[in-house]
Amino acid sequence: MSDEDLNRGLEGIRVAETRLSDIDGEAGVLTVGGFPVDELARNATYEESVFLLFEDRLPSADELAEFRADLAGRRAIGDEVRAVLQRAAEEEKPAMDALRMGAAAANLGAGEEDPEADARRVIAVFPTVVATYWRYREGDEPVEPREDLRHAANYLYMLNGEEPDEAAVRGLETYLNTVIDHGLNASTFTARTVVSTESDVVSAATAAVGTLKGPLHGGAPGPVLDMLRSIHESGDPEGYVHEKLEAGERLMGFGHRVYRVRDPRAAVLEAAASEFYDEAGDSDFFETITEFEDVAVEVLAEHKPGRDLETNVEFYTAALLDGVGVPKELFTTCFAVSRVGGWTAHALEQLDDNRLIRPLSSYVGDRDRSWTPVDER
Amino acid sequence: MSDEDLNRGLEGIRVAETRLSDIDGEAGVLTVGGFPVDELARNATYEESVFLLFEDRLPSADELAEFRADLAGRRAIGDEVRAVLQRAAEEEKPAMDALRMGAAAANLGAGEEDPEADARRVIAVFPTVVATYWRYREGDEPVEPREDLRHAANYLYMLNGEEPDEAAVRGLETYLNTVIDHGLNASTFTARTVVSTESDVVSAATAAVGTLKGPLHGGAPGPVLDMLRSIHESGDPEGYVHEKLEAGERLMGFGHRVYRVRDPRAAVLEAAASEFYDEAGDSDFFETITEFEDVAVEVLAEHKPGRDLETNVEFYTAALLDGVGVPKELFTTCFAVSRVGGWTAHALEQLDDNRLIRPLSSYVGDRDRSWTPVDER
Repeated sequence: MSDEDLNRGLEGIRVAETRLSDIDGEAGVLTVGGFPVDELARNATYEESVFLLFEDRLPSADELAEFRADLAGRRAIGDEVRAVLQRAAEEEKPAMDALRMGAAAANLGAGEEDPEADARRVIAVFPTVVATYWRYREGDEPVEPREDLRHAANYLYMLNGEEPDEAAVRGLETYLNTVIDHGLNASTFTARTVVSTESDVVSAATAAVGTLKGPLHGGAPGPVLDMLRSIHESGDPEGYVHEKLEAGERLMGFGHRVYRVRDPRAAVLEAAASEFYDEAGDSDFFETITEFEDVAVEVLAEHKPGRDLETNVEFYTAALLDGVGVPKELFTTCFAVSRVGGWTAHALEQLDDNRLIRPLSSYVGDRDRSWTPVDER
Repeated sequence: MSDEDLNRGLEGIRVAETRLSDIDGEAGVLTVGGFPVDELARNATYEESVFLLFEDRLPSADELAEFRADLAGRRAIGDEVRAVLQRAAEEEKPAMDALRMGAAAANLGAGEEDPEADARRVIAVFPTVVATYWRYREGDEPVEPREDLRHAANYLYMLNGEEPDEAAVRGLETYLNTVIDHGLNASTFTARTVVSTESDVVSAATAAVGTLKGPLHGGAPGPVLDMLRSIHESGDPEGYVHEKLEAGERLMGFGHRVYRVRDPRAAVLEAAASEFYDEAGDSDFFETITEFEDVAVEVLAEHKPGRDLETNVEFYTAALLDGVGVPKELFTTCFAVSRVGGWTAHALEQLDDNRLIRPLSSYVGDRDRSWTPVDER
């Protein structure tokens, strides 16, 4: 078979219709649940974003109260899962491994299997799993979830053991809304493939966590933060950019496979970070970041003309999450804490009008081998 | 966008080249690791089949001894995972859910992440996870794995608490070899998609378990056994077939999406089951099964001419696994205990020459919605 018949990346192949999100990479427009991403992200609570993806409309006040209470009631994990997370922390397994373990066990303590209930459960439990792992990792006791706090606030509360201020909650919530869904990326596609066999939503979300773990998808926002901090210390963004490019290295936080212009999520996160650092009285660090962006975009345009390298979602993710109190070791799990809303919505959408996803492979091995007993090999 | 641009099942799309297995559905030929499936299945131990998939050749005697010892040394699970499986058993979660939980935590107690070591670990640990869950489910204490038994023998030992006879081990081993790989089915494709982000093999195998859980893929060999038992009791296979077809129902254990002739795995499993039931002195039940197959194929040919409905892999799986001592509630997990060899080999093959798998979706939702505050909805 010729190479031309192979499509190893499935580039350009349309495998699903979705009303959940749409990416216009040329124009730099991301639509989520019918809203331009900035319109949604700066206005919604995370619970409203999830409701929107599930129901294709915003909830009434009563519906929102019911939905919040329902999610809040599904946050707790049992002793057995807690012990697994403790062991993962003691063995210093990556946070994404711990989340995979907690996700896989998410239906323990839950009732009968039901796609919508499973979806609510995994969304509710992800922050608990991540925070429990992190507390053990830091040598602290886990903090029980509080039902009176909204999703983002309870997450920060479980991570840090104290009730967060509204600026931090709002900053995190804007992040969670911004990255909740993004077309048919690899993890979302995995979630849909899993349920295409009529499997369940817990299995789909667990598989998606494992997919997002890979650096080609989940990226590396942690190192972006290290870079920004070191540039802030040196005070010389321009020197840093030239040094990297002369060494032939990539500049972290710039460029995206899909967007030809600035990632629209970068603008939302920049505005949220700006607001947060202003309120927190730490605008100095934020000024370094924007100055670095300006310098880097200018120098990149000179060094790599025609490439249009602009900041991607990781760039301001690092700044914003660090600001609101999420440790950099949890950046990718924090991405999952948001994206699980999209994963589960895609799984429900797939189940609603399902077809088994089963592509083909081309065989390139031998044929008609015959057996040789072990003592004659 | 028109429906024609959509390929919801990815039918006919070739996404990978593989040397692991090949299906010729028209001719009814399955090649596994270069061998016709019957040549491999009736000769190999499971360890040899796995080595073959990993290395594209059979091991020497020394290599096989080393490989067996290495796998045997990776079988144990820790107390924390055991407690999760106990909880799953107490809550009567499906066996595939328990396996997903155990798979997700497979790297606990293991060393640093390494694709080949991860692959060996998940293969080694799957039987322990399944057997531990099942012992709790039955109200028994789990049985620790024994390093001196080979893979299939140790699995039966852990399930039943006593050393199995060679006929049962050989029967199970033939099954494990027969279904170890089967082209790019949905779970194998999921495993490749997961590692295509440069994620890890534990995540890939966990995702594959979740995919296989779905009845459109993992099927329902348990109900096939119930059917065979009830036909054996009534002694009237012909009456059963007519009754089902007149009621407009499908006949379980017949027909396959890919094979137009008899599934080549059915022949291997039939021979293995025949041999096992002969040795076990229970040829009566086996005679019912073959008589039922003959009657059903004849009647199906009359009722559905041109469909060529023949027995599929589930038909003799049920007979063989029941015979060797695997409870029907574990049939799908037993499928996974075999297929994990193929999943991990595909993951390693993908990682060896990787490309991110990322298809597209078509957006069918609204655009440019604008925000309404909750109190105005």
